[in-house]
Amino acid sequence: MNLFDKHRTRFEGAQAACRERFCWSPFPDMPAKYPDSAQAQAQGQARFQAYLGQPSAPQRFALVQPGQVGELGEEVSPCTRQPLGILYPKADIDTLFDAATSAIGGWAAASIDTRIGVLMEVVDVVYREHLFEIAQSVMHTAGQSANMAYAGSGVNALDRAIEALVYADKAMRAVVPNARWERQFGPSKIVLDKTYRLVPRGVAVCFSCASFPTWNAWPSMMASLATGNAVIVKPHPATVLPMAISVRVFRQVLSAAGFDPNLVTLAVDSSNEPIGKLLVKHPRTAIVDFTGSVQFGQWVERNAHPALCFTETAGCNTVVLESCHDLDATLRSLATTLCMFSAQMCTSPQNIYLPRQGVHTPQGTVPPDEVARRLADAVAALTSDPKKAAMILATIQSDQTLALLQQMQTAGEQRGQVLLQPRPYAHPEFPAARTSTPLMLQVGKTERDLYGEERFGPISFMITCEDGPDALHQATTDVKQFGGLTAFLYSTDEAFIAQAEAAYSQAGAQLTTNLTGAMPLNFAAAYSDYHVTGLNPAGNASLTDLAFVASRFRITQSRRPAPVAATAS
Amino acid sequence: MNLFDKHRTRFEGAQAACRERFCWSPFPDMPAKYPDSAQAQAQGQARFQAYLGQPSAPQRFALVQPGQVGELGEEVSPCTRQPLGILYPKADIDTLFDAATSAIGGWAAASIDTRIGVLMEVVDVVYREHLFEIAQSVMHTAGQSANMAYAGSGVNALDRAIEALVYADKAMRAVVPNARWERQFGPSKIVLDKTYRLVPRGVAVCFSCASFPTWNAWPSMMASLATGNAVIVKPHPATVLPMAISVRVFRQVLSAAGFDPNLVTLAVDSSNEPIGKLLVKHPRTAIVDFTGSVQFGQWVERNAHPALCFTETAGCNTVVLESCHDLDATLRSLATTLCMFSAQMCTSPQNIYLPRQGVHTPQGTVPPDEVARRLADAVAALTSDPKKAAMILATIQSDQTLALLQQMQTAGEQRGQVLLQPRPYAHPEFPAARTSTPLMLQVGKTERDLYGEERFGPISFMITCEDGPDALHQATTDVKQFGGLTAFLYSTDEAFIAQAEAAYSQAGAQLTTNLTGAMPLNFAAAYSDYHVTGLNPAGNASLTDLAFVASRFRITQSRRPAPVAATAS
Repeated sequence: MNLFDKHRTRFEGAQAACRERFCWSPFPDMPAKYPDSAQAQAQGQARFQAYLGQPSAPQRFALVQPGQVGELGEEVSPCTRQPLGILYPKADIDTLFDAATSAIGGWAAASIDTRIGVLMEVVDVVYREHLFEIAQSVMHTAGQSANMAYAGSGVNALDRAIEALVYADKAMRAVVPNARWERQFGPSKIVLDKTYRLVPRGVAVCFSCASFPTWNAWPSMMASLATGNAVIVKPHPATVLPMAISVRVFRQVLSAAGFDPNLVTLAVDSSNEPIGKLLVKHPRTAIVDFTGSVQFGQWVERNAHPALCFTETAGCNTVVLESCHDLDATLRSLATTLCMFSAQMCTSPQNIYLPRQGVHTPQGTVPPDEVARRLADAVAALTSDPKKAAMILATIQSDQTLALLQQMQTAGEQRGQVLLQPRPYAHPEFPAARTSTPLMLQVGKTERDLYGEERFGPISFMITCEDGPDALHQATTDVKQFGGLTAFLYSTDEAFIAQAEAAYSQAGAQLTTNLTGAMPLNFAAAYSDYHVTGLNPAGNASLTDLAFVASRFRITQSRRPAPVAATAS
Repeated sequence: MNLFDKHRTRFEGAQAACRERFCWSPFPDMPAKYPDSAQAQAQGQARFQAYLGQPSAPQRFALVQPGQVGELGEEVSPCTRQPLGILYPKADIDTLFDAATSAIGGWAAASIDTRIGVLMEVVDVVYREHLFEIAQSVMHTAGQSANMAYAGSGVNALDRAIEALVYADKAMRAVVPNARWERQFGPSKIVLDKTYRLVPRGVAVCFSCASFPTWNAWPSMMASLATGNAVIVKPHPATVLPMAISVRVFRQVLSAAGFDPNLVTLAVDSSNEPIGKLLVKHPRTAIVDFTGSVQFGQWVERNAHPALCFTETAGCNTVVLESCHDLDATLRSLATTLCMFSAQMCTSPQNIYLPRQGVHTPQGTVPPDEVARRLADAVAALTSDPKKAAMILATIQSDQTLALLQQMQTAGEQRGQVLLQPRPYAHPEFPAARTSTPLMLQVGKTERDLYGEERFGPISFMITCEDGPDALHQATTDVKQFGGLTAFLYSTDEAFIAQAEAAYSQAGAQLTTNLTGAMPLNFAAAYSDYHVTGLNPAGNASLTDLAFVASRFRITQSRRPAPVAATAS
């Protein structure tokens, strides 16, 4: 059985889900539901441990790829704050491009089914053999909790990878491979046989970010590879291991299927000597996928030409709290989402806009100061127990975020009110972990230079506005100007909800209305929730629409007169 | 009956043709087959005449649109070499953008069916009421023959417009309008109703070119409009009238269907005061479609960001003549294509690569000098009779092309051999017409600075190469470096043909092999032939693939808990 047939049922399930956008996944949503979970988790942990070295005796990550010119590695676990002690091959960039370029021919010549089959096999091998090892590596680089690393950086990221394959497949199958074309020209009938070929653009460069390495990178890699391109992966130097393991799996599966493993290579750099700009401007870069900072993302967007570029950066995710049916439930949901992975997710809300006259509830109108206070209390309650805090807040990926917390607290003291002061909490499993409870500030609408950009990490702003419409106006204006991926609305007024849906649609943020309960507000479901609209500065690409895949390949054709026998018929 | 239902049969026919890429058109391919042809043609001519003014007493083109700040018009007929004497409104650019922006809301809110229906109605109104008037206006601006103006700038361009609608429709329908999503989170079931909206990017700017105004512009306009955007049309100042008539039809049909006519406006400039760069860099430009010179096209590609851009410029279209079954038939076909509209088509071949040892034929090997001589004779024969010359060569659109002919002839005399000298011919219908028979040069492979760029107009180069493989190598290298849309191969060697198909596919030129007979070699069939690959400098966009339409709109979503009744079920 070929690999496409092997994974056909799963792929067809994904196709149906993408078409109708219902809830679907071939994977269990919790680690505990994974087959032989305890053993698999233990094995993943053992494999992760086996990668680790000491600063004095670093270990080489076994990745045999062309052009090695040295070794690099500077990862530090946010959990233990110890260096991982792993060295990766430093590659000569031109050699990687040469190897990638020469790998493309055979891969591009393979059928769509073959490529999709091989890439579905990659998904399956990651799921069956490397999931917990990757989850551990995400914990000790990005700093996620075990559950989030399993779900958000594991199965949910695999779902987004499959989703990208579904759309790539759809775009490619819109091109019929050949046609017969017959037309009269005066007395003559011309019969042409036409052949259409799908031609990949060339070498794609895929940047992965420090806090969520796999979630964007896997689908980007899949989109480029499915359409016949090669991919050079450039991980953030703080979070290399999850992508190094991924690259190795891609290479092994490609190789086992008879393809050149250099279709996927790793280009590691260091924070002192970044290679991102070199890669983007390399004359053979045909596609750039970028996830990371707004600043570098904007540079990529401006400078990628003639390469295509697909970006996801960040923005001010907004909440408009106008009225609600159950303020406690609403605040519980908001508090949870403000805490989730210490708001180091591109979908975490940051700015909460409140009407000056208060939030209407069945129990009466609650003034904004009280709403802010109760929300801060809810956050404090969630994070007061270190065990619960560890599960929800996890760790802080970078020292820079701690510095930003301090800076924002000082600014907040001067220009508004500090509702909740951040403090380290004692992680029960990792005593040395880099942690912080959230900083919550209350500021006036005019302090826009404070709240009007992404403040990465557990930092949020309660912003008092004139009234509901003003809150909506300010929130959507901020999204349009500064970017925003997600937005959250609480209102019992259907007319206001309709206005908000229209305004957020124009601003280009994905809106969730009146959600309370067990689902994390900012949960983005593969096959169902479109991620990033491209309508504001938070990124230009969406996971996953046809635009994400359709231009990664081009169409060429050849035509010639049909054999005479056909013409005579 | 709504407009979509009115045109449903035609649209479904186009969808089937795009899917299978067989020969199809709802329109008669020759003027004579048009219903009531003589009367329609007479009416078209009368309407065209009615537009004309005198330099001393120019006529205003009746186009009422916002922001008029003056009048402009500098068109000169290549047929009569007299000014058309037509003045168009000069528009304030910001006012056009304001008007376009405020027109988008209602249009974007309409259903896909509604927009497609209205745009199919535009196609139909152009076809039924304005086709011959547009053909006349193309003759007297672009300088095409009556037949080409009818077909290439009329029905074939309408076919490409419908084709763009088919792909826009396909891309938009890949997004389901709403979904119900249900998932367990622990003990809780969350049920969300999700709504997906298609959001246009904003205002598109569509540049049309001097020699083929409608063929690229109509499909570009359709692609942008179908996906909900507004379009500002910026015609080449030498060829305004066909687009002015088109813009007026769009406006009338939009208006009659209840939409804001400012979805389509005209921005005319002059050769002294071009506004192209202003339009591309306007902060509200969201999409640029450009057809025109390589130089400005490359500027557009580099500078359009953050707007999307879709370009078709030009290149060296190549012929590799390695061997053939019938040299006379081959040379007749090549001669015809070299003469067609004086090679002022983006698909016209320019460079003919010949093996030094000669072209194999059933009658023996014919040396390259003899092949070149016989091809020049065939061109001379085709163009010696002014009546035939007028039908095939038509006129020269611009004085610059005459100057280039002279310059290239001088260079050819110095660095190679002039096979055929250009000379004006007496156009039987328009004695003052700007005309020229072709210039044909024979040069060595090393004269690459002469033949290695598009020499716009009836200029061709016979280039002697080492052998067949060298000819193919040189031709495809030139295409990859300098651009190329079409390519033509003659060979009786199947292995060589297979090599050529692969090499031209990599170079990104659409290949036609061993075609002789009644069909013009460079004929590009809507619904069947992809036009431009995006793989070389001749342009980045293809008529029509999903990539041409899929990123012209974005997807936003809103989600909220389903009503409790639904949740309980």
